[in-house]
Amino acid sequence: MSKKLTTREENYSNWYNELVSKADLAEHSEVRGCMVIKPHGFSIWEKMQRALDDMFKETGHTNAYFPIFIPKSYFSREASHVEGFAKECAVVTHYRLKNDEENGGIVVDEDAKLEEELIVRPTSETIIWNTYKGWIQSYRDLPILINQWANVVRWEMRTRLFLRTAEFLWQEGHTAHATKGEAIAEAEQMLDVYATFAEEWMAMPVVKGIKSESERFAGALETYCIEALMQDGKALQAGTSHFLGQNFAKAFDVKFVNKEGKEELVWATSWGVSTRLMGALIMTHSDDQGLVLPPKLAPIQVVLVPIYRSEEQLNDLREKLEELMSKFKSLGIRVKLDDDDKRKPGWKFAEYEMKGVPVRIAMGPRDLEAGTVEVARRDSGEKSSVAFDDVVGHVEGLMDEIQKGLYDKALKHREENTHTADTWEEFESIINGKGGFVLAHWDGTAVTEEQIKQKTKATIRCIPLDGDTTPGNCILTGNPSARRVLFAKAY
Amino acid sequence: MSKKLTTREENYSNWYNELVSKADLAEHSEVRGCMVIKPHGFSIWEKMQRALDDMFKETGHTNAYFPIFIPKSYFSREASHVEGFAKECAVVTHYRLKNDEENGGIVVDEDAKLEEELIVRPTSETIIWNTYKGWIQSYRDLPILINQWANVVRWEMRTRLFLRTAEFLWQEGHTAHATKGEAIAEAEQMLDVYATFAEEWMAMPVVKGIKSESERFAGALETYCIEALMQDGKALQAGTSHFLGQNFAKAFDVKFVNKEGKEELVWATSWGVSTRLMGALIMTHSDDQGLVLPPKLAPIQVVLVPIYRSEEQLNDLREKLEELMSKFKSLGIRVKLDDDDKRKPGWKFAEYEMKGVPVRIAMGPRDLEAGTVEVARRDSGEKSSVAFDDVVGHVEGLMDEIQKGLYDKALKHREENTHTADTWEEFESIINGKGGFVLAHWDGTAVTEEQIKQKTKATIRCIPLDGDTTPGNCILTGNPSARRVLFAKAY
Repeated sequence: MSKKLTTREENYSNWYNELVSKADLAEHSEVRGCMVIKPHGFSIWEKMQRALDDMFKETGHTNAYFPIFIPKSYFSREASHVEGFAKECAVVTHYRLKNDEENGGIVVDEDAKLEEELIVRPTSETIIWNTYKGWIQSYRDLPILINQWANVVRWEMRTRLFLRTAEFLWQEGHTAHATKGEAIAEAEQMLDVYATFAEEWMAMPVVKGIKSESERFAGALETYCIEALMQDGKALQAGTSHFLGQNFAKAFDVKFVNKEGKEELVWATSWGVSTRLMGALIMTHSDDQGLVLPPKLAPIQVVLVPIYRSEEQLNDLREKLEELMSKFKSLGIRVKLDDDDKRKPGWKFAEYEMKGVPVRIAMGPRDLEAGTVEVARRDSGEKSSVAFDDVVGHVEGLMDEIQKGLYDKALKHREENTHTADTWEEFESIINGKGGFVLAHWDGTAVTEEQIKQKTKATIRCIPLDGDTTPGNCILTGNPSARRVLFAKAY
Repeated sequence: MSKKLTTREENYSNWYNELVSKADLAEHSEVRGCMVIKPHGFSIWEKMQRALDDMFKETGHTNAYFPIFIPKSYFSREASHVEGFAKECAVVTHYRLKNDEENGGIVVDEDAKLEEELIVRPTSETIIWNTYKGWIQSYRDLPILINQWANVVRWEMRTRLFLRTAEFLWQEGHTAHATKGEAIAEAEQMLDVYATFAEEWMAMPVVKGIKSESERFAGALETYCIEALMQDGKALQAGTSHFLGQNFAKAFDVKFVNKEGKEELVWATSWGVSTRLMGALIMTHSDDQGLVLPPKLAPIQVVLVPIYRSEEQLNDLREKLEELMSKFKSLGIRVKLDDDDKRKPGWKFAEYEMKGVPVRIAMGPRDLEAGTVEVARRDSGEKSSVAFDDVVGHVEGLMDEIQKGLYDKALKHREENTHTADTWEEFESIINGKGGFVLAHWDGTAVTEEQIKQKTKATIRCIPLDGDTTPGNCILTGNPSARRVLFAKAY
């Protein structure tokens, strides 16, 4: 398989697809819409999971697990939720197959039809609130701060690896609170956790904001989100946190007795990020040579490649490289020595470049004599000869430098591609031209929002929590606008 | 809710069910056969996952993720596999619901019928080998050493929390090798990993062995297993590792070109453990007061409980207990200070006893004066007064002592309940009486095995890898027997 990618310039979409495949991240399965997450892709996802899970636990959450199947009737209980979620989904109708006596093979056993169909969860609010009903009686039982790591299924006809797949992996937090204020504080806290994770771990700057009413989660009173800008000028929603009010408590009759002995409905939040973050990570940093990874999320941070002609040379090099390896390990740097004899150095260089290993160290017989190694940075492509004795300290510094460099570069890209538009012409020309984020005035109505979407495919990504709150006039209708909101075409 | 359990003596099965519920481990959901794993139960499972995952990675494996849905036809490809797996399962037949215009609510949209039904995976050999076909061309691509953490569904009518549920969580390793010897070595290595995990982490002694032909995994040439003995004298299969030969390579046409340029079929293994281990853990150590946990798997190893009448007393105690807490933390001991004012100390004592926290430290005003704390061991119930300055070292020692003590106790129980039987009468009287493991001769035929099962409900748990290989005569037929095998009634 050729390791050369279509360039971003030539065809951004092909570049993405080829990179995901060639960097061993994921591939389409033969099951429509479902992906296989390959070892390298999964190892990055695991790093994300671990970091997020630690942050959830630091903020007082615990993990639990709820059934994958949800009885169909549960979805009808929360009126807006059913519209948003229960339509395109995988429906289990039978629980047995049998041998096909006539034609061979196996067929569905019609005698094993379920009384009520089960839906493979598209999200778990309904089954979780049905469970919480049994867990909550008194204010003493609150808050409940639970997260679940799970697979979910939303039937999708047009899929793209990581960005939109029928089955995907995610985490969904579901919390229950005694007061409205506590629930809102929770939803806001988790938005901050997501933003911190995106910026500090993924090196991906994000805009924190709230969704317009029509972009809200089905069943939420408020949806908070983080939005990132990809290299092609399109936005990507990277995480959402919902204040659900008492909607699910009402739907599933979940009440508690407060300190004063009075019964009240429970307040709820839910929040989630998914394997979609893998798509965001790829499209934020990668280049025409392949994946670029921030060191904090790189499964292998440093790869050591010996360059040799003879077994004897290899042995000498291996001794030095193993010495380096143990020094890196003692510093907690994830390192791999690739002395696989089945592959040539050139193949290995291309492979680790494609897979986004942040630092490559090569050592050949001449280096051995000179007491040096060649250090190559994946982000800048820069190569330098470093004295063997200095290399550990040098690389340790590079880890921070690359992490910060990637963030700064992405932030610069976002800043250069965030525009303000004051007229419809200006707005249209940016959206249809160079793209990017556009801060513009909007009259606050769903009708105008829909018209702008129809005309340009741009949507309101969010109403930023920070930023300009000067009033003005809607770019489309000229009606009064309370403040600028953030528009973009989005993934 | 009363915290008192039915005793094991009174009714072992009720004891188990009540414990699982009252220790906050799991509960039945309203979805038939599916369980909710509650926070405390899940946190123990997470500890197991982490330890196993580390061991898998140390032995060269990486994680990946494959689709939850498997096209029905895949199961027909491996003849014995279809018989074993594709029958009792969740079948997805449709991908959309719609509003019911007549009766309200939502109904299945008959226009959205799948061309081929999808099965929610009961195990993933078929979809994984269908994927491996695209990954393997040359000997350079081998071995593939992949593990998956996933949920699986096997429709079960009679379910018991953790032990047998329709949906459960597990890991499934699927490896591909160039040679038969390498595949067998892999299957044996993973059996050893499981045995080490069971004994060193779960403090649960196991017998390693191979399954008789009729108890083999559907599609395997050899199934290795670890078998543990529960307190009620019944056996529990705690993990299996399968040598699959070339069966799945044949079924999915997976070949590779060897170093000599010749095409060969690939060799396979698969191996798995599940949330069933939670049931094994509970039934190995717990007592009539609730869960007993080995310290290595305890989410909280030490709980600190202040006993106070006034806010002032609490503040004084908290200061000392926080000092203790930070010392424990610096040693890597998982500690919780429970100063929740909503609950009384008596309630807390019962709660942590039920939940199996290995060590409880209580401190009241008198302890404060005397410079002591009360240390209570969950395993033995033993309480002692320990000088404040000695308590950290004392508890650190207890962690090892309790871990080892639980293993020794379980081993003693197994030894006392492992019998040899030389006649049918002896065999029947043990199996129907005190129970336990019975080492007995068997003529090696599936017919005899089935007859013994029909007569006594005992099955061949395994042919132990170690142990007596002296020939003899079958307890049922008197025919020659190559060696004793291990019988028991089993979960």
